[in-house]
Amino acid sequence: MARPFSVEPRRIFNFAAGPAVMPSEVLKEAQQELPNWNGQGLSILEMPFTGDEFKKLLRQARDDLRALLAIPDNYRILFMHGGASAQFSLVPLNLLGNAECAVYVDSGYWSRKAIHEARRYCILDIVEACRAEHIRPNPRAAYCHITTNETADGWQYRHLPESGGIPLVADMTSDFLSRPFDVSRFGLVYAGAQKNIGPTGLTIVIVRDDLLDRAHPATPVVFNYREQADADSMLNTPITFAVYLAGLVFRWIAAQGGLQAMEQRSWQRSERLYSEISASDGFYHSVVPPEHRSRMNVCFTLPDEALTQMFLAQAAWHGLVNLKGHSQTGGIRASLYNAMPDEGVAALASFMYKFRRSHARSL
Amino acid sequence: MARPFSVEPRRIFNFAAGPAVMPSEVLKEAQQELPNWNGQGLSILEMPFTGDEFKKLLRQARDDLRALLAIPDNYRILFMHGGASAQFSLVPLNLLGNAECAVYVDSGYWSRKAIHEARRYCILDIVEACRAEHIRPNPRAAYCHITTNETADGWQYRHLPESGGIPLVADMTSDFLSRPFDVSRFGLVYAGAQKNIGPTGLTIVIVRDDLLDRAHPATPVVFNYREQADADSMLNTPITFAVYLAGLVFRWIAAQGGLQAMEQRSWQRSERLYSEISASDGFYHSVVPPEHRSRMNVCFTLPDEALTQMFLAQAAWHGLVNLKGHSQTGGIRASLYNAMPDEGVAALASFMYKFRRSHARSL
Repeated sequence: MARPFSVEPRRIFNFAAGPAVMPSEVLKEAQQELPNWNGQGLSILEMPFTGDEFKKLLRQARDDLRALLAIPDNYRILFMHGGASAQFSLVPLNLLGNAECAVYVDSGYWSRKAIHEARRYCILDIVEACRAEHIRPNPRAAYCHITTNETADGWQYRHLPESGGIPLVADMTSDFLSRPFDVSRFGLVYAGAQKNIGPTGLTIVIVRDDLLDRAHPATPVVFNYREQADADSMLNTPITFAVYLAGLVFRWIAAQGGLQAMEQRSWQRSERLYSEISASDGFYHSVVPPEHRSRMNVCFTLPDEALTQMFLAQAAWHGLVNLKGHSQTGGIRASLYNAMPDEGVAALASFMYKFRRSHARSL
Repeated sequence: MARPFSVEPRRIFNFAAGPAVMPSEVLKEAQQELPNWNGQGLSILEMPFTGDEFKKLLRQARDDLRALLAIPDNYRILFMHGGASAQFSLVPLNLLGNAECAVYVDSGYWSRKAIHEARRYCILDIVEACRAEHIRPNPRAAYCHITTNETADGWQYRHLPESGGIPLVADMTSDFLSRPFDVSRFGLVYAGAQKNIGPTGLTIVIVRDDLLDRAHPATPVVFNYREQADADSMLNTPITFAVYLAGLVFRWIAAQGGLQAMEQRSWQRSERLYSEISASDGFYHSVVPPEHRSRMNVCFTLPDEALTQMFLAQAAWHGLVNLKGHSQTGGIRASLYNAMPDEGVAALASFMYKFRRSHARSL
């Protein structure tokens, strides 16, 4: 394949939607101490979770997260197994209690996955996202579920909705720790770790005390929020390595200036790409209304499939990888999680400009 | 603290019951390629699971495991989230079908945990382990559940029982891959990876085709065996790093001579410690009948709690760590998983001898 431009491919920038880029400082630290954690003579992978060293590590990670988000004392932080998709079932199993109904906001691909699962446990009152900033009160519902950022669609809430007096439950998997938010507005927040935190298999659950005792008897005990809250997330073996990495990432975020800094960077970086789209005279196209364009996943299409494939191939040649859109939506998706270096975004914006200049004329 | 003997502490040997020792060659390989897996310029932690590279890795790991255990074609291999304790619920949720009853063999601490969970889903027919080699037929039962090795008690099946014509289901968490076994005798085998494989959060499930369609409607979709079998364990994001490490360990076992070699080593090594116990004139005591003594977890007691604490402290001083027995059983537990170096067992046997010689006289 002929090299399209004169730039040398020097560094790989990973725009994957998750599992995704991790901070290079965190990877370096993890690599360095992999055979010998904390001077123990053992790998963190080999540490018993019942030992004082690991318990201290887990509690430190939990306290660091509490500090980052200013989580009030009446909320518990759980380190759960199983990814966010597991929570699509575990939320209704844990929260329905005696209610037969829950409100779900449909904002795109992932909220529809949550809806599909929840339907097996209760009656759903579905709200379209376009009307979701004023959700009609439904006193029969146990909770209202939203998806704060839609990874596949590139859609994000700027302002969180009112939930009409019932507990607000949010899947924040893909924008958790990208901006500050007021935890006290939520009954429960969950986030798979594989976006702004990093490792797969770990899900963070932040749950208000008064919602801990509603679990259905069929809920597996290791996935029962009350049981894990009482056991400090150590009812069974936690995903030790993922908790360790999460702890490193929490410290990294704090060292970068905390969530305000993450939010500011995510605005600057996503604006850089959205500006390229706006300036492209329709060559790059986003279907998302400007007020809902995601700061995490910038999604756009090109005029046709041949150009899309050429864009992906040439971008990869320049070290800009994993830009392919979600299989259900197609097009291009650039995920800009916290760990994406600014240089990566600059390189992509520059590539978008050059690619358009080369190809827009020939249309 | 005064040094008790003249031996220099040089190397740490980790006798933890799990998370436990991993092969040093595997840790070295994982460390080396952590920032750049397979020349991709990305960490394995950052690889999208939907990409061809990761899919190839997962399928290779699955095929290597199939080869190690000679798993017949009518069995599926699943890489599941959640640890073995999650399976205590997921087995009844997936396998009961229309049956209201299951047989559970009570062989110790972990089988009782499985029983405690299963009771929430069905009527149980409990069989004592001492009579478990001839389980009475119960045609109303959906399956018969056994625990092949009891980590806390140091108890292990030498010969697998007949299950009276119903599918035999085994929790093999703590002796999986320590010996060959005839998979075709089982309906389902599951094993948390944190013993002879290594990483936490991953559970291997090997399930016969005809048992895939019995799941209760309340089973979370990501924990439904049929759904994960059809999706090649990629219905949701798998625990990518744990699957990667498991693949490295499967190759390491094959390179060491496979499961026959693992079994031979586990016999030789556990015999070394059991001989020390037998020769100790009652100073070291095992409550497990010789025909059920575990090759994985050698459990024993000392004459009193003060000697037990002294044993633990002096052993740690000599680099023999994590020997404390399970919190429910007390005493000493030496776990001898595949990755334990022979030198570690020799060092422990020698320490046991010297410790007894120093202290038995003073009793």
